[in-house]
Amino acid sequence: MEKWEEYVRRVVPYTPGEQPKETDVIKLNTNENPYPPCEGAKKLLENYNSDDLKLYPDPACTELVDAIAKVQNVKPENVFVGIGSDDVLSMAFLTFFGSDKPILFPDITYSFYDVWADVYNIPYKTKPLDEDFEIKNEDYLEPNGGIVFPNPNAPTGVYKETQEIEKIIKANKDSVVIIDEAYIDFGGQSCVPLINKYDNLLVVQTFSKSRSMAGVRIGYAIGSEQLIKFMSDVKFSINSYTLNRLSLKLGVLALEDTDYFNKTTQKIISTREKTKTQLESLGFNCLESKSNFIFASHKSVSAAKIFEELKKRRIFVRYWNKPRIDNHLRITIGTDEQMEKLICALEEIVACED
Amino acid sequence: MEKWEEYVRRVVPYTPGEQPKETDVIKLNTNENPYPPCEGAKKLLENYNSDDLKLYPDPACTELVDAIAKVQNVKPENVFVGIGSDDVLSMAFLTFFGSDKPILFPDITYSFYDVWADVYNIPYKTKPLDEDFEIKNEDYLEPNGGIVFPNPNAPTGVYKETQEIEKIIKANKDSVVIIDEAYIDFGGQSCVPLINKYDNLLVVQTFSKSRSMAGVRIGYAIGSEQLIKFMSDVKFSINSYTLNRLSLKLGVLALEDTDYFNKTTQKIISTREKTKTQLESLGFNCLESKSNFIFASHKSVSAAKIFEELKKRRIFVRYWNKPRIDNHLRITIGTDEQMEKLICALEEIVACED
Repeated sequence: MEKWEEYVRRVVPYTPGEQPKETDVIKLNTNENPYPPCEGAKKLLENYNSDDLKLYPDPACTELVDAIAKVQNVKPENVFVGIGSDDVLSMAFLTFFGSDKPILFPDITYSFYDVWADVYNIPYKTKPLDEDFEIKNEDYLEPNGGIVFPNPNAPTGVYKETQEIEKIIKANKDSVVIIDEAYIDFGGQSCVPLINKYDNLLVVQTFSKSRSMAGVRIGYAIGSEQLIKFMSDVKFSINSYTLNRLSLKLGVLALEDTDYFNKTTQKIISTREKTKTQLESLGFNCLESKSNFIFASHKSVSAAKIFEELKKRRIFVRYWNKPRIDNHLRITIGTDEQMEKLICALEEIVACED
Repeated sequence: MEKWEEYVRRVVPYTPGEQPKETDVIKLNTNENPYPPCEGAKKLLENYNSDDLKLYPDPACTELVDAIAKVQNVKPENVFVGIGSDDVLSMAFLTFFGSDKPILFPDITYSFYDVWADVYNIPYKTKPLDEDFEIKNEDYLEPNGGIVFPNPNAPTGVYKETQEIEKIIKANKDSVVIIDEAYIDFGGQSCVPLINKYDNLLVVQTFSKSRSMAGVRIGYAIGSEQLIKFMSDVKFSINSYTLNRLSLKLGVLALEDTDYFNKTTQKIISTREKTKTQLESLGFNCLESKSNFIFASHKSVSAAKIFEELKKRRIFVRYWNKPRIDNHLRITIGTDEQMEKLICALEEIVACED
């Protein structure tokens, strides 16, 4: 080992879901939206004056921040934007979790939380979900350096009512509580209105799921002016110009097209419910999901086996070989057509084993 | 103060140059390229299939990495890409500067270095440039946790020969040495070939200056496979998908259009030399620059005064009210036409004072 290696920050990085390069696959493994972005996106690109790409973007992202504030019914000072919600969450960890006390999050949750804690040397403790994969309020009453969990939770899709979340926030006024609402638009109710009551609450959302813009990279946080100011200071200490000029414009368009947003999220919800019924009739047990995915296990065929068999048929879903969830699959909701193909493939796979 | 505020990371952020919202200004304050991006950019956007923005981008940025490797004559394993060179440099600080020994950089240099050191709790020591604003090799021989400086240096534009830089790298094999080459394409010679000799050398470049893509946000680092692997691990522990789909494509186009790149960088160099002669004839003292800007002070009119007078005439340059450089202006090289207007304005301003 070279001497300089002694000073290197060593980490075990997060592994994202596979991004197969082929286009003839059914991709139900990274919770992308099966519908294209709003109509305006295409027109924007067609008519874009590419000359202005020579100039830095607006570091304050004013237009996009204003559009988010309008949709969320908050002030621009309550909004922080970043490169996807991962950037926003990572920045929040770095900004707010500087205590010696551990931060708390569920044992089964978004698998980036412990990675961020590691990279920023933040102590943490995980709290086991109950046997129904629910977050237990009483686990979040001990002294802590912060709390974070998704609602709906990932990869389970299980939703917690706002009034239950409020109890956790109320009991933890001495640390920052982050609610990661990446999947809130598929049937849940957002905690955003609570930011006016609790200055230590940060709510994070993304354009990657319900706004069909995973490839554009936009996420944001909503919180009290104080929280947002602290995050912005850290952001401006790392990279002044995060969002590029095109993403800033595309984001505004996505927010303005409310009809399309409502139509596509509703469509995904109805496809989800239909798929859930079909899966159950094939012998799957599905958690109640308020997200754009279903977390399911089969009564007799192992998740690992189904995962491999689907892959052979060029259908990608997500599987984790981890304690407690190693017999579950996370299946993103695609179009009705994609889900029909999935169901056909599963019928075959399950029948072979019976 | 609320109790949660105790855990907050507090920093004094970097202040970027003004980004005036008006379009009828002459903007010579943030070292942007006055020429538009390559011709292909416009066509790409016009014909872009916006449907694919619903999908996450390639987290490995393979196409862009391959294109950079080709242009730089290195392997893809030697390339790391990020959201502008600020993102890349910040990630390098976080990854490599984990020693208790201070990192070293010049007292007059890119003003983000001390900000990154602060945000990541990295101890640092600054080394004064000599009276000609040159980096003194002997300052970089003491034990350290890392070394970083731009070549050409900012905001001076002063260039250091590669063989001189190699002496510094050779004397510092126990820590990572970062050469920030944001401005290397305007007449300097890159240190990239040295990465084959020194596995602790990281060279950082950007698309924001010579490639006319400040608004697209692409920067990259070139280094040994080991260095790049360590950085990638940290990157994948923070945000898997940094570069959006459009920026990934635009970057490839910029690299492919070698003719346009050569033509525009040469043009900027010749405008710089002409402007320098004109400034000198107006009583300015200009440092020898190998960048796309000139660092100048006037023999009788104060920099602060000139800065304000130019602003009144809607010409923006950069001024820092900081020790040793508070009588200098940093003037970005624009088009010939823009520089003519600058010179006219300066003639007026300087004449008033005589």
